[in-house]
Amino acid sequence: MSIAVDAMGGDFGPEVIVEGAVAASKEKNLEIILVGQEEIIQRELNRRHAKDLPIKIKQASQVVEMDESPADAIRKKKDSTIKVALELVKDRTVSAIVSAGNSGATLAAATIILGRIQGVRPAIATVMPTLKDPVVLIDVGANVDCKPHHLCQFGIMGSVFSKNILSNENPSVGLLSIGEEDYKGNIQVKKAYELLDKSGLNFIGNVEGRDVFKGNVNVIVCDGFVGNICLKLSEGLAESIIQMLKREIEGDVSAKLGYIFSRSAFKRFGKRIDYSEYGGAPLLGINGIVIISHGKSTPKAVKNAIIMANEFKLSNFIKQLDEALSSRKETISAQKVEKLNGV
Amino acid sequence: MSIAVDAMGGDFGPEVIVEGAVAASKEKNLEIILVGQEEIIQRELNRRHAKDLPIKIKQASQVVEMDESPADAIRKKKDSTIKVALELVKDRTVSAIVSAGNSGATLAAATIILGRIQGVRPAIATVMPTLKDPVVLIDVGANVDCKPHHLCQFGIMGSVFSKNILSNENPSVGLLSIGEEDYKGNIQVKKAYELLDKSGLNFIGNVEGRDVFKGNVNVIVCDGFVGNICLKLSEGLAESIIQMLKREIEGDVSAKLGYIFSRSAFKRFGKRIDYSEYGGAPLLGINGIVIISHGKSTPKAVKNAIIMANEFKLSNFIKQLDEALSSRKETISAQKVEKLNGV
Repeated sequence: MSIAVDAMGGDFGPEVIVEGAVAASKEKNLEIILVGQEEIIQRELNRRHAKDLPIKIKQASQVVEMDESPADAIRKKKDSTIKVALELVKDRTVSAIVSAGNSGATLAAATIILGRIQGVRPAIATVMPTLKDPVVLIDVGANVDCKPHHLCQFGIMGSVFSKNILSNENPSVGLLSIGEEDYKGNIQVKKAYELLDKSGLNFIGNVEGRDVFKGNVNVIVCDGFVGNICLKLSEGLAESIIQMLKREIEGDVSAKLGYIFSRSAFKRFGKRIDYSEYGGAPLLGINGIVIISHGKSTPKAVKNAIIMANEFKLSNFIKQLDEALSSRKETISAQKVEKLNGV
Repeated sequence: MSIAVDAMGGDFGPEVIVEGAVAASKEKNLEIILVGQEEIIQRELNRRHAKDLPIKIKQASQVVEMDESPADAIRKKKDSTIKVALELVKDRTVSAIVSAGNSGATLAAATIILGRIQGVRPAIATVMPTLKDPVVLIDVGANVDCKPHHLCQFGIMGSVFSKNILSNENPSVGLLSIGEEDYKGNIQVKKAYELLDKSGLNFIGNVEGRDVFKGNVNVIVCDGFVGNICLKLSEGLAESIIQMLKREIEGDVSAKLGYIFSRSAFKRFGKRIDYSEYGGAPLLGINGIVIISHGKSTPKAVKNAIIMANEFKLSNFIKQLDEALSSRKETISAQKVEKLNGV
């Protein structure tokens, strides 16, 4: 089955998306349906001599702008690329969707059109580079106000993601807090600790901010408010550090000369901390495979997001997730938690 | 008036603390009282030929360990360096205290011994390096569960700190959230936005994680859970980036040669992102000047923390803070907020 790609989403427009889709199709021989304005997409495909690739176009006349209110966009734009692409998932024309467009609108439309897995709060997972293996941070923005059992759901979903897509047999799961001891954290986190502890996951307890980039844990759980701040802080700090270093090097003749010798090391380093290596951030907890790409995605990031979507399909992800969640009903349900902990 | 320094606190012991105190006393001609085990401190002073400096010793027989429970430590260790030093502030023998010891114990003991400024939640402020001017992040760990009016208090205290100690005439204050728009954030942050907006501060609205290191805002407000995670995440990421870069350089002969040429640029860069340049993190909202130093403080960090304590004294900080808070009673009080917003 094909993968649908929102061809109009993202900050850099169809050029970048089509280039990424063509690369993914070539590399993995993937069937892709590009959703958007046919004429524009066809022109981009022609420029890339993609005639022989299994890529089709599905017309959609409207685009949700990046700064548009998700609620407004869904109500008013009935023929948006996001909605049309999600309908393709719903009627099983495609197995997954990738969009670099307005992530709030994608989240809202996916919840309405595809529906949630019963009893679950959908969350966005992202893969971050570390000193060792990449780590999954979940949630990075779908839920700003969470209850403890939601955090437990995120732990389960992150664990299934890490196992099936990143090939960690028994992923370790940590809860982001302000100290390792179980009594450290805010009210929400202290209750979530109890739930994760009896969830049957490979729960290693609290982890701190400094642990995120060490690579000693496979999955880190937090609410979407904290996760979103962590993600953007990390991107901002990495950019700032590189800018500061460049400034110091540029103001110094000897250092400039040194940089010429070190250039390949800098390049490899850049590749290591490059988020586009991991492609997209899956929206988990939805009845369907939805991959959200960064608005600033490069063609490589789009390509990797499409390849990730295909891996979700091949691993039969939704079924795996369903099983993992339904076998843990007592730790993921609100009622039981409230009875146990008085939250 | 002297400044009291907890000579036994921190991960590296009295050697580092005494060296920092001697340096501060020399550089600024400061009177210092070192609190701790007299014999050990005297030996460290002798080794540093500090006889002619205005440094005295105040005996305290016990030390709160770094991993000790703050509540236990305060109850059981009546003659701890932290308690003895805080008593010196209380009876006005000294004007301020600096401790690199157990920060939870310092926070708790300071609240008990010196008391809070009326109606205020004490918070820890920290200064972080950015691409431009340093930014004040408040709170970084004193309060894990906050109400909206506490966040407003943090904004006021951070603003007085930025103005009096970092010389920003009308400091801009941002609220850490997940988008610039006033409707973005969790419940607590959305309500805090309203309060900060009418506080009379130079409030610029929400800022995102990526803004922290840009240096476009003087003060960033968040609760202690989020702030502590941000602080440790930043430290961890900066360390990881440098380690990754070193690894790439070391595995490459040409890059190694390049590094020799670039060494001085790397050194200047290291100095720019070095937290010890800013010394300590003041505990604000207490009836007294309390500076908390990082447990891993170097002598330079200890020196700078003592110099910062002196600047607090010279600027008549507590009076300034009292005035700023009492002129904004309606935005910092719980009752009014609850009536207005139904929180």
